[in-house]
Formats: sequence, structure tokens, C-alpha cells
Amino acid sequence: MSIQKYKECIEACNICAVYCDNCATSCLQEPNLENMAECVRLDIQCAQICRLAVAFMAQGSEYAQDICQLCADICQKCGDECGQHEAEHCQECAQACHRCASLCASMVA
Amino acid sequence: MSIQKYKECIEACNICAVYCDNCATSCLQEPNLENMAECVRLDIQCAQICRLAVAFMAQGSEYAQDICQLCADICQKCGDECGQHEAEHCQECAQACHRCASLCASMVA
Amino acid sequence: MSIQKYKECIEACNICAVYCDNCATSCLQEPNLENMAECVRLDIQCAQICRLAVAFMAQGSEYAQDICQLCADICQKCGDECGQHEAEHCQECAQACHRCASLCASMVA
Amino acid sequence: MSIQKYKECIEACNICAVYCDNCATSCLQEPNLENMAECVRLDIQCAQICRLAVAFMAQGSEYAQDICQLCADICQKCGDECGQHEAEHCQECAQACHRCASLCASMVA
Repeated sequence: MSIQKYKECIEACNICAVYCDNCATSCLQEPNLENMAECVRLDIQCAQICRLAVAFMAQGSEYAQDICQLCADICQKCGDECGQHEAEHCQECAQACHRCASLCASMVA
Repeated sequence: MSIQKYKECIEACNICAVYCDNCATSCLQEPNLENMAECVRLDIQCAQICRLAVAFMAQGSEYAQDICQLCADICQKCGDECGQHEAEHCQECAQACHRCASLCASMVA
Repeated sequence: MSIQKYKECIEACNICAVYCDNCATSCLQEPNLENMAECVRLDIQCAQICRLAVAFMAQGSEYAQDICQLCADICQKCGDECGQHEAEHCQECAQACHRCASLCASMVA
Repeated sequence: MSIQKYKECIEACNICAVYCDNCATSCLQEPNLENMAECVRLDIQCAQICRLAVAFMAQGSEYAQDICQLCADICQKCGDECGQHEAEHCQECAQACHRCASLCASMVA
């Protein structure tokens, strides 16, 4: 069953999407928002691809690997951007993104 | 922070969406598929509203309660339908749906 | 067939989601981004609820009206916010949001 | 602006998603549902990737081409499956899928 097979990757994607949504909202309340624009932009995309990756894995889709490959790339880029900011929501998000990137990459391998 | 405040409800919605996706795919492989049509139909909707509920909660949206109210209704209906089928994927999905319905209802209350 | 019955509302929701996505991205590139934070925040939510509304209408869901009711509220709020900004992407988005709010309200009535 | 640049492809993806949602629901009401299982399964995935493709194009994402490449593949497969069924909702869906596959492929090229 796909949801057993992909359990760890599904959980990492779900957690990553939640931290990205939270990071985007929190960035939009930061006083130095102009420095956060790229972070918000990537958070939005990262949350979206993570949720699609979960759906495709849970559905046992033959395209799950293709989505997870792309998800790994986007998570890596988003995590790298978030990691440059000191705000706690950015640091937490960076960690969730990098973990998700790693698990998606392993899933594809 | 919204993701702490709504932690349990977010997790229940994420789990419910995954079990609904899995149940839909599994139902489509059942020999008695004609009995499973309503289950598939509700699984699809339930997974979608659960993912939106998570997104709105994680974003700290002022509409999170409205979505969770509706999510509770759809999860309840989907769980009731799934609960009528003996297949393991249906029983597991029913449990995830009912738990999600309960936590969404509590969140709104 | 639901997609004929809801044709105009589906199209308005799809157009609204696209303008909201575009407005969010464009706002994030504005020099006065701190004034645009609320606009971005609402654009994200509005695009998400519009896409769910389309999916539920196209699926002929018994919950389509509930989603469209909520979609009307979010579109109205997002359109009002966008309408306060002079940028072309905001003005176009405001127009798409208000049209969508109006069609969703009519669909529910 | 991305929404002008990708206008035709965005519209084709939105239309494809709507026809896939409609086809899935309609297939689930067919008397010979067991022949329609694969159609429903692909419709669900196709609607999801089409909506993500629209979102990424409308956001002007640097990953829009990657998503559209995958969207072209899924639309092609879904359209080929739908095209094998005589039901009007399948034939209409096949046409929407093939048009979307073609426009996504052109967008990537």
C-alpha cells in the first residue's frame, strides 16, 4: 500500500507544507518585509508542490516519483532561502524544507 | 502561532486526506466497484477540503473556522459512507474521517 | 451537467484565481511592499478557495453552494483590499474578485 | 506578465481540470463503472496537476516549465484513456486533455 511505502516522505511533505504556509504568513508581518519577498514567493510554491506530492504518493500514482523529484528541487531552494533569515519561523521552515528535500530525493533514488 | 494552536486539528486533517486518497485509489481496484462509487466520490471531496483546511489553519486565516466547519460536515459524511464497507482501506479511512470531523468540530466550538 | 449549470461561475472563479496568483507575485516585487502585505495574504487565500469552488462545482458536489458562499466572502474581502492599491495588477485583481464574489453570491441565492 | 505570456496554456489547463472533474463524477454514475476505473483514476490526477500548472504559470514560477512538462504527460495519458470510452463526458474530456497536452508541450518547447 502506497501510504505505508511512502509514509516518511508523506509526513515530511505535509510538515513542510505547514511550515511554508506559516512562514509565508509570518514573513508578511515582519518589519523588514522587503527582505522577505523571495522567502514568501518560494514558500507559496513549496507548500503547493508538497501537497501535490502527498496526494500523488497517497494515490499510488505512477507519477509520484516525477512530482517528488521536482518537489525535492523546490524544497531545497526554499530551504536555502529560508535558512538565510534569522526569524524563528524561517529557521524552522528551512529545517522542514531540507528534511523534505532529502526524503523526496531518497524516494526517487 | 497558528500551527501550534491548531496542531492536533492540522495533523488530523493531513492524515484524513491521505487515507481518503488511499481509499479512493483502493476502491477503484475493488471487484465490486459499483458499490464503492459513493465512497470514491466523497473521498475525493474530503481530501480536497482537508488540505484547504490545513492551509487556512497554517496561514492563520480568519476563515479557518468557516473551512473547518464545512470540513467537519464533509468528513462526517465521508466517514459514515466508508464505515459501511468492510474493506480495510475503508475502515481505516472511516476512522481517520471521524477523528478529523471531531477535531474540526472542536476547533470551531 | 454541473459544468453547464455553473459555467459562468466556474469561469469567474478560474479567472479570479489566476489574477490573485499574479497579483501576489507582482505585489512581492513592488518597492512599497510593506503596504502590500495584506493584499498578498488575501490573494493567496482567495486563489485557493476559488480553485476548490471550481472543483466542487465541476464535480457536482452537494457542498458546492457552501464553498461558493465562503468563496464570495473571501473574494469580496480580497477585492476590497486590492481595490485600494493603484497598481494595475491590483486593479485588475480587484475587478476579477468582485465579479467572482458577485457570481458566487448569485449561484448560492 | 506571466498571465499574458501563458494565457492560452492557462486557459487550456483550467478547462482540462474542469472536464476531468466532470468526467470523474460522471464515470462514477455509469452502469459499467468497472470499465471506467482507470478513467476516474487518471481524471483525478490530471485535474490536480492542471491546477498546479495554472498556479505556477500565473505566479510566474521558475518551475512552471517543469510542471507543464509533467502536465503534458499526464494529460496525454488521461486523454488517451478517456478517448477509448464512448460516453460524451469521456469524449469531451479526451478533447480537453489532448488540447492541454499539446499547449503544455508547446509552452515547454
